[in-house]
Order: sequence, then structure tokens, then C-alpha cells
Amino acid sequence: MPAVYGELVKIYKKLEKHYKDMQDIEFTVENKKLWMLQTRSGKRTAKASIKIAVDMVKEKLINKDEALLRIDPKMLDTLLHPTLDPKADKDIIAKGLPASPGAASGKITFSADDAEILKSQNQKTILVRLETSPEDIHGMHASEGILTCRGGMTSHAAVVARGMGKPCVSGSGNIQIDYESKNFKVNGRVFKEGDIITIDGSSGEVMSGEVKTIKPDISGDFSTIMSWADNAREMKVRTNAETPLDTKVAREFGAEGIGLCRTEHMFFDEERILYVRQMILSKSREDRNIALRKILPFQKKDFKEIFTIMNGLPVTVRLLDPPLHEFLPKSDEEISSVALSLSISEKEIKDRISDLHEENPMLGHRGCRLAISYPEIYEMQCEAIFEALIECKKEKIKVLPEIMIPLIATGQELEILRELVDKKALEVTRKYNQKLDYLVGTMIELPRAALNAKDIAKYADFFSFGTNDLTQTTLGISRDDAGKFLDDYVDNNIFKVDPFVSIDVNGVGQLVELACSNAKKNKPKIKLGICGEHGGDPDSIQFCQKAGLNYVSCSPYRVPIARLSAAQAKILSKKKVN
Amino acid sequence: MPAVYGELVKIYKKLEKHYKDMQDIEFTVENKKLWMLQTRSGKRTAKASIKIAVDMVKEKLINKDEALLRIDPKMLDTLLHPTLDPKADKDIIAKGLPASPGAASGKITFSADDAEILKSQNQKTILVRLETSPEDIHGMHASEGILTCRGGMTSHAAVVARGMGKPCVSGSGNIQIDYESKNFKVNGRVFKEGDIITIDGSSGEVMSGEVKTIKPDISGDFSTIMSWADNAREMKVRTNAETPLDTKVAREFGAEGIGLCRTEHMFFDEERILYVRQMILSKSREDRNIALRKILPFQKKDFKEIFTIMNGLPVTVRLLDPPLHEFLPKSDEEISSVALSLSISEKEIKDRISDLHEENPMLGHRGCRLAISYPEIYEMQCEAIFEALIECKKEKIKVLPEIMIPLIATGQELEILRELVDKKALEVTRKYNQKLDYLVGTMIELPRAALNAKDIAKYADFFSFGTNDLTQTTLGISRDDAGKFLDDYVDNNIFKVDPFVSIDVNGVGQLVELACSNAKKNKPKIKLGICGEHGGDPDSIQFCQKAGLNYVSCSPYRVPIARLSAAQAKILSKKKVN
Repeated sequence: MPAVYGELVKIYKKLEKHYKDMQDIEFTVENKKLWMLQTRSGKRTAKASIKIAVDMVKEKLINKDEALLRIDPKMLDTLLHPTLDPKADKDIIAKGLPASPGAASGKITFSADDAEILKSQNQKTILVRLETSPEDIHGMHASEGILTCRGGMTSHAAVVARGMGKPCVSGSGNIQIDYESKNFKVNGRVFKEGDIITIDGSSGEVMSGEVKTIKPDISGDFSTIMSWADNAREMKVRTNAETPLDTKVAREFGAEGIGLCRTEHMFFDEERILYVRQMILSKSREDRNIALRKILPFQKKDFKEIFTIMNGLPVTVRLLDPPLHEFLPKSDEEISSVALSLSISEKEIKDRISDLHEENPMLGHRGCRLAISYPEIYEMQCEAIFEALIECKKEKIKVLPEIMIPLIATGQELEILRELVDKKALEVTRKYNQKLDYLVGTMIELPRAALNAKDIAKYADFFSFGTNDLTQTTLGISRDDAGKFLDDYVDNNIFKVDPFVSIDVNGVGQLVELACSNAKKNKPKIKLGICGEHGGDPDSIQFCQKAGLNYVSCSPYRVPIARLSAAQAKILSKKKVN
Repeated sequence: MPAVYGELVKIYKKLEKHYKDMQDIEFTVENKKLWMLQTRSGKRTAKASIKIAVDMVKEKLINKDEALLRIDPKMLDTLLHPTLDPKADKDIIAKGLPASPGAASGKITFSADDAEILKSQNQKTILVRLETSPEDIHGMHASEGILTCRGGMTSHAAVVARGMGKPCVSGSGNIQIDYESKNFKVNGRVFKEGDIITIDGSSGEVMSGEVKTIKPDISGDFSTIMSWADNAREMKVRTNAETPLDTKVAREFGAEGIGLCRTEHMFFDEERILYVRQMILSKSREDRNIALRKILPFQKKDFKEIFTIMNGLPVTVRLLDPPLHEFLPKSDEEISSVALSLSISEKEIKDRISDLHEENPMLGHRGCRLAISYPEIYEMQCEAIFEALIECKKEKIKVLPEIMIPLIATGQELEILRELVDKKALEVTRKYNQKLDYLVGTMIELPRAALNAKDIAKYADFFSFGTNDLTQTTLGISRDDAGKFLDDYVDNNIFKVDPFVSIDVNGVGQLVELACSNAKKNKPKIKLGICGEHGGDPDSIQFCQKAGLNYVSCSPYRVPIARLSAAQAKILSKKKVN
């Protein structure tokens, strides 16, 4: 029916022109006559979606703003990571949460150390854990992907994996791990260490054996769209990164600075954790200082590496945040090894662990509270930042450090700690006879800080909303424990979405807006940003534009999503004004 | 020098009349001539302070309002509890926090069960623990006083002891308990189980041996002042109580109702904890309901007892609040005993304990979240309340139950749970063909609830500010862990006082005021109260008056303090208006 076919093409062209979008049409042919039944905008893959948008601009059917609004930012994730070959067979053995996108295969390994050993033998591994903790970071780096039995979309494993751009399936509750026998059971089947599995962090599926994957293909259209987005947006996009690798990836993805460099991740490195432990186990300020002197050169090197990669762009360094007990050894084996290395008794270590134990570590002795008790920790960190800055200057590397104090609740805390930073800067300035440029600011991550933003702003050059913790405290929900009831909440329509994924506008959002407007009363030009997980969520980015933030910061692999979302937010805000 | 003496008396009378207060004068006599050097209002004990105030009103030197303002409410505490005989010798072995006033002596005992056994033999004990938990309640009841090594002014031991009116010294960090050997070491001395010690919960001192105490003497002047206070105040004073004993004490002290009856304390009772555990270990709603049916008669009996004591006065019953894991057995011994009693495997119990484990239980699966997941728990509790109400009615006991839903963060939660309560009320109404009078309200203890008070008020007859939890979430400080850094904060003048003792006006206070004014927009006559520890703190009571609360609720032994403080608050508020 060539006649009908020609007619169909003509009608399609008309429809496409009318609706300014690719059409999915239904038709029938009766007695050689074409009957059009229905037409609607066609569904498409991320890649197709970008191609169609770019083509339509070329064909002058739509303008660039319209093209940018046509693309769902969340779809970009699939373009940046390997995906499962749709033609491959899959033997699905379990499901979990799609915690970090991408697909990967490897040998099952149950410990971070084993993953590292296999990596050194050029073997691919999937790290399988009940849940992960900061001590597993090296194993997460060494593996192709992470699978956990416990934890939600914002568990340690999920957050860190997204930051690393590695696939992660979290909270796969049916899997029963037996660490001793080095195997896991699921639905009656047993998988041993060394068996190969595949995980798909975009769907949450876990499969037996190796399933073929397709590499990401960032075509020319992708970068065209990104450049349009960069022209359209108003908010800057930074990244949350603290390793040279993450920092490089983020810069390649278009990050315009670091919005959150978590210095504690540097403390866990094998070379220095012993000194960190020595510091924590010290009984006097003098002894703590001796240990801190040993950490200083490492911190300085860390900062210099990151400053160098970010040459010319701002780097927000968050001073130490987690409670000190997180750094102490846990197993008896580790305790006796640390006791031997530091020539102290095991009992001393166990006593200190028991001393530092907290019922609710999230609300404990952490953040700036550490520096009120032990100012020497932040003094060492500032010295490392400023010394790194001096060395970079010599090498003509332009550094814009923004020193960020976490967990501020009152103006007095920041007044005291800003003085500490400025004093250390003055010392270094005098030592090298070099002027130092830096900003000092704070995270706003407690309701009390948001409520007292006007007072706190007196001592701050910038605010960065730490919306992970602000969500935890405002809603009274522990991110680590929310998995147990959040489904019931979404089912009952109490939350439309997980408040750790998309910002809770009526609660956390109210506090952010209040803090922004109150801060500007004392400091009209204060720099405002967000560095919680929400900084990479399209809906939350819409909110950030409305709240008047200057930048969002997100994990490296979300930077392109944030660039597009920020553009959409600006375009939509113009529309509302018109 | 009788001439000079007569002159002195005359001058003193003049001074007293001029300053309208007892005077502490300094004078000297030179060459038989009297020289007056200085005069100031004299310091006095609580008892003297009350006597002077009452006498001065009788002598018409001051009016009743002035008399009430002359007495420091905090001093009343010493009048209501036994104090150490100032003449007695003291062998002080340690110091801790003055966590609950009064002095007591007894034999050292290291477990709640041992305390109960000794009590049954008419022996006096002091319960010595690292820290206490809800499972120690029966031992705390059985002992004369409590001494803990860990925990602050608002630790479990401190809060419960104050509620019970028992002396408590908490956070006595130098004491090292060895539970196994049943002794404790302090500064090189060893004290064994059975040795007698004395604690002074008003000073924080711990002494070896028995130190003589003086019984409280509530004289006629005390009740005169209290009746003046009752006439002067506007805010009602309720109590936080859930045992018949506490309820009786509170009513004797003048409580005008219960502001917080914590139903979970009833769950720990030996007779019923097994059924509670059965409920938690159940795998289906049906099985949970079978266990809950067994708890129902106990809860009904509890409520009937309390309603009867509070005949004619309102009783606010808070539905179950703590996370379920708090009720599960902890030691291996307990686990195997529970496994035996319930005919399930130990592994099943251990798995459930591991399932329910939380990183931050304060921010976990608790409060109304339990009822969103397991509505049958609140259904049982409401049935018990309404059935108790029906039975009381038959006996002509007037009951005014106010059902309080904890940890609300959103209007939707309260909408769902109010419907649950109303449905259960309708069922009972139909069954007995009796009209039921009750109120349904919520605690405001999360920043998000305060921010959304207008919406939440749609479904609430009353709000009760749970300022303990509201302080924890607004400031991001765990009450149980704050002891580790709060001293540094007070030393650095960041907090003037412990925010768990006196309300943080600039943070928590802002949220309370915001919630009050927003709630009234939707419900102008909403009843507003406070049931956090602050309800018994004089400074916080001043704040409550300003915020426009209708009542404060505090532990039984603080009721007289609250009555006087509420009177002072009202008198001062009138002064400001004039």
C-alpha cells in the first residue's frame, strides 16, 4: 500500500509540526483507506530524547529553551553508565533498591580487603556486605559494584557508590550473608565467594553469572544539549568530591568547583588511620598535637592534589565532621593490632571505645562540637589547607578555598571557630609573608541554625545547606533507619516521595527559605548553596532556584543532571514571571 | 552595751521597713558609738524565705504578689525531700550531677532484681548502675536512690528518679563498676555489694556509710504560699505520671490533671512484657492481634486506676512511643528464657533483634510511625482507654481522657490516626450504647510539626509541646550523649544553661511560639500545653506564659515549683503590661 504509506508520512509530518514533538500514532487501513485513530507524544530512550530535541531545534520546530525542557534530567543517568544488553539472558536471583545506576559483573567478595587483593590481581569483584561503613571505602573503590542487604537509597553504600559512579544495589533483604562460611543464600540457592554475579544499579536486579553490558556513548548531541543548558542556567553546579579521581571525573562532567570536600574520608586511609587513632586515644592536648603533626603532611598533600585539579575553581573544604568513635577499631583483632602498634594496652582502647559510645551518633559529639572540645583538630586542618595554598601559589595554581564549619547551631560557635581559622591564616601569612585568600562559612544542617541564620550570617561568608542532616533533624528521621517504615509512609501517601531523595518543601524547604531571607538581612551578598544529596535531584533543584541559591553541589556522576535541571529551573522561573 | 543594742534594733526595723525585706547588716561599735557599715537583703533557707514572705504580708509590709516573687521556686525542692543533717560527718567518695533532689542511704546493689529482693526483705538499697534503662524501673522503685556513672541531668535515671521523687546522682564518671565481681572502685577505694553508701541528689555527693538525714517539714506557711500562688496564676499545672503512686503524690501536691501518661512504662511490667515480646515477634497482623488481646486487660486496669485517682481531672494518655526493640530481651540468658516461654527458636529472636536494630533510635521507627506500620497497637490502646472510661462511668467516676499521638511530623499522619481513634470510640459507643467524651491531640516534638502546626491543628483538639525531643531535634543534640560536650559548651558561654534544663528560647522557643500562633489560625481555641522536662523549670515556665500556653505538666515532685513559677510568670506579665 505505497499510496497509503505516502499519505501517512505526510500526515505524520503535519502532526509533528503541529505538536512540535515526535508522535506515536495509531491508524488502520480499511478498504485501502487510511483511518487515523490517535496520536500522542512518543516515548523514547534518553539518547533518542536528546537527538530529537537537538534535531527539532535544527529544524526550527522548537527553540533551545523548549528543547531543554523536553529532556527528563533523570534519564541522563543511563547515558553516563554501562547498561545491561537488552538482548542478554538474565537469571535474576534477587532484587534490591536501585541505589546507584549502571551495571557491572564480578566475583563475589565479602570484605573490602579481599576486594583490594583481587583488584591487585586484575580481577573484577562485586563487594557484598550486610551494609557498608567508612572502613569499607577502599574495598568499594577496588570493586566494580556494591551489593548490600540493609540500607536505603541514602545508606552509606548508596551515597558513596553514587559519588564514585559505581553501580550499587542496596537493601536486598532476601540475601542472607554468612561471613564466616563466605557465602550467601537467597531463595534456596547458595552463592560462594568467587562466584560471578551481575548487578544492575538502575533496576535493583541481582543476576547469577556475567550478563553482557553496553558502554555509555556520550555523543555530540549530548554535549550540544549541555552547552545550551550552561547558557540557560543561573545557578552554578559544583560537586561533592574528596578524591583526585572523583574530582577529575566531576571536572570532566562540567563541575564548576567543589561544594563539599569531606575531609574525614581522608582520615580513613590506611597510611594515616593509625595516627588518627593515636590522636583519639591521647589523654592530653599535647599528645593529641603530637599525633596531629603526623597527619598534617597527608592532609596537606590531599588538599594540594584537589586544589591542583580544581585550578581556578572554588573548593569548599568541610572540616572534620563525624564522631571520633567512627575512627576507632571495631573487631578484637583490630584492637589488638592497634594496641601493639601504639604500645598501649587493649583495655585502654576498649575503655575509650566504651567512653565514646553514643546512643544517637547522628546527634552526638561531632561537627563543630569536636572543635569546641578539641580545637587542635581544626587548627591542624586549617594549617594543611593554608600550607597547600601557599605551595599551589608557587606553582601558579589558583586556589579559592572556602572553609566550611559543620553542624553549627549558634552564632557563638561560628564566632569562636572563625576566630580559630583566621588566627591560623594569620600565622601562615606571617610565616611565608604571603597574603591568603579564603572564605569561611558554615553548613546549615540543624533547624536551630536555620532559625538563627541572621545571627550566624554575621560570622559567615557563605552558607551551604546540608539538607541530608537538615532532613534528619527537621523530620526526626534517621537516614540509616528510615528504610524500616518509609515504604509504609509512601504507601499511605504521607510522603509523596522519600524526603531524602527529593527535598521536603513544606518542612525542610520552609527552613531553607527562612534561613536565606534572614541571612540576607545581615549580609545581603552572602553566598548560598546546597551540598546535600538533594543537590543532584531535579525536583529539589527547582526548589533551590526559587529559594535563590547561588549554586548546587552533587556527586560527580550527577553533575550533568544538575546542569540540565538548573537550566530547566531558570527557564521555568522566567515563564512564571511572564 | 544594751544602749547600743536598743539603737541597733530600732535602726534594723527602719531598714526592714524601708527595703521591705529581711536585712543582713554590717556594723561596728567604736567608743560606744554604733557605726552602720552596710545593709543588704539577707540570704535565707527555703523555709525561712517562705516564713519571712508570709510574715511580711501579715505585717502589711508587702502584698501577696510581692511575697510570691520573693521566693525562689527552685528552693522549694529542698522542702519536699529529706536533706542531709548539716551537723553530720561526711566521708565524700565521689561526685556526680545533682540529678534528682533529696538524700538517702542504703546497701549498694548492682541490679534491679537484687534491689527488689532486698526490698522484699525490708532492706534499704541504693541502685548503682553504669546507666539505667526502662528495664530497671522495678529496681528504681525498690531502691531508696539511684547512682549512675554515665548520663546527664536528663538521662533515663535522672528523669525517672525525678518523676519518682527519689534522689539520684548521675554521671559520676570516676566510679568504675565491675558487675561481675559486684563491686565498684573509686579513687583507689573498693565498695562491695551490701556496703552502705549515702547519696545527696541535691549536691551530687556520694558518701561512704550512712549519713543522718532530716525529714521534710511542709509547714502551714508553705500551704499558705501555695494557695496564694494558685489564686495568682493563670496557667494550669498538670503532672507527668503513669503509676498509681506517682499519680497520688502529684494530686497531693496539687496537680490539676495528668499532662503526660507514658503508656510504654506499663508495657515493661513483669506480668505483661512477655505478651509485648510475643506481639513484636509475631509475623502477621493476626498474630500481633492475638498477643495484643492479652495485653488489653492490663492496659484497661492501668487506665482505670489512674482515671479513678484523677477523678474529675483531665488525663492525657500518650499512645505507645518508644521503638519496639526497646522491649526485646538483651542478654543471652533472657533471650533463651523468652524463646522457651514462647516456644520459638533463639535464632528467631536474635534475627528480630538484628532486624529492629537502629543506628539512631531517637530518630527511628517510633511514635506514631509504629501505628502507621502496625495500627493494631494503637487500636488496642484506644480500646483499653474507652473500656476503662465506660467502667469508670458506671462507678460515677468522672473521666476526661485526652488521647495524645506522639512524634507527628505531618497533618496526614494525624488525620489517619485520629480516624483510627474515632473509629474505635464509635465501636465502643455502639457496644455499650454510651456516649464517650474524649479529646484527640498530638505532641509537637519535631521541628517539622512546629512548622506545619496550622495544618496539623485541623485534626487536633490540643497540642502538647514535647520539648525534650524538640530540643534534641532542633539543636541536633542527643539528650543521652550531650554529657560528653555540654560542659565545654557552658564553659565557652555558647549555652548559658543546659538546654535540656531550661528551654532554648532562641531556637526551640521560636518553634513553640510559631506553632502556637499558626495553630490558632485554624483553631483559635486549641488547648496548648507543655509536657517536656521544661514544664517544671521556673525559667521555662516564664517562657510558657509568654507563649500563651494553657498548662504546664511536670514530674510530681515539681508540681509545687510549677504552681509558684506559674504565679510569678503571671504577676510579671501583668507588670510588663502596666
